[in-house]
Amino acid sequence: MKKLIIASTSTVHGSTYLSYILPRLQEFFATTDEILFIPYARPGGITHDEYTEVARKGFGKIGKRIRGIHTFEDPKEAIRRAEAVFTGGGNTFLLVTQLYKNGIMELLRQAVLDGTLYFGTSAGANITGLTMQTTNDMPIVYPPSFKTLGLVPFNINPHYLDPDTGSRHMGETRETRIKEFHRINTQPVIGLREGSWLEVSGDDIILKGELSARIFEQGKEAYELENNSKIPFGPF
Amino acid sequence: MKKLIIASTSTVHGSTYLSYILPRLQEFFATTDEILFIPYARPGGITHDEYTEVARKGFGKIGKRIRGIHTFEDPKEAIRRAEAVFTGGGNTFLLVTQLYKNGIMELLRQAVLDGTLYFGTSAGANITGLTMQTTNDMPIVYPPSFKTLGLVPFNINPHYLDPDTGSRHMGETRETRIKEFHRINTQPVIGLREGSWLEVSGDDIILKGELSARIFEQGKEAYELENNSKIPFGPF
Repeated sequence: MKKLIIASTSTVHGSTYLSYILPRLQEFFATTDEILFIPYARPGGITHDEYTEVARKGFGKIGKRIRGIHTFEDPKEAIRRAEAVFTGGGNTFLLVTQLYKNGIMELLRQAVLDGTLYFGTSAGANITGLTMQTTNDMPIVYPPSFKTLGLVPFNINPHYLDPDTGSRHMGETRETRIKEFHRINTQPVIGLREGSWLEVSGDDIILKGELSARIFEQGKEAYELENNSKIPFGPF
Repeated sequence: MKKLIIASTSTVHGSTYLSYILPRLQEFFATTDEILFIPYARPGGITHDEYTEVARKGFGKIGKRIRGIHTFEDPKEAIRRAEAVFTGGGNTFLLVTQLYKNGIMELLRQAVLDGTLYFGTSAGANITGLTMQTTNDMPIVYPPSFKTLGLVPFNINPHYLDPDTGSRHMGETRETRIKEFHRINTQPVIGLREGSWLEVSGDDIILKGELSARIFEQGKEAYELENNSKIPFGPF
């Protein structure tokens, strides 16, 4: 049975890396000591090694070992062997390009469907959706496809941000961008605010954390879903 | 000789569509009565007709006729016949996809190199750069390529936004995103604030409007370029 934690962000304002969610991660990863880390999204352009060190420090606090997928000669073998996977945030275009380039997009999907535990933050959350097309990131590299893991029957918008009513900036709000997405695409989009996460257990998907989420469906007004509610989409 | 006005935005806060730049547009388009409008970016998903009506109203104030490229049976013929082109803002992925689909990306480039006047705002500004990879837009559709018109020897970031030092949001700042771009790509990026525009006249490119622009070069600290300065890149 698939089991995922899909988190809007790794870090909430004023706290340290992962600290808001570590107690839950300790339970979630109770059955395993080692987690395979996918550092491909490289936030701020840091190296795979540097990023893996960040993840290692975070998970060290709950006694988990972290190994970066880039340290395996064969990334496919790394996915096959892993009991648990963590994909960190950064640039989604870079992450998706690298997953395709290394031939592990479909393999990772199958592994999670077969029970490999999956935790993703930000870009690592975005790729659990049907496509990466509701990312906030800059297209710094051209991926072979926008299709992603499709482990949930909708798209994710991480770091969801409410319109700033005091702003003088004329760029589109997040809500406007997602509306534009829905002029062309049909799948629902879940705007996950920082500090929120989705818990996927088989076909059940629950919104956790202290905040509500913003739900966008094609042809409907956007609406709020309260925390601890079941996500009203799926199973496939 | 190529002549372009590359504007960060169509509208500045608290004023009407194009009004901040209409006096300059009147001079720029002095030699022509009709402007071909490219509405492909469809802001907020409005139709090509609706968007063309917006442009028509704006340019009506300086006595110009606007015709939408979608009203021509052959968009290639429309580009070949035009003395002046205006590409409006909206979603850059949609705009670029449509330009390629209609086979007019290269044709538009050649036309501008041959002297067709070009004015672009936001997404319509972004595509004058080497690639669309410093857009702020959501990837709502998968374009055949990120390569754009390459009429200037750098990339554009329209609606450039300084970091909000009071923000509690953990999403990447614009500057961080552009730094990530430069871990992979070498071309300079010009962050054009709303109300700024570039005037291109052959190989000369001048920053106009009342604000400075933020310049990003690979491997350097970002810096400010004062208004009325020459852009320090190019010719090709």
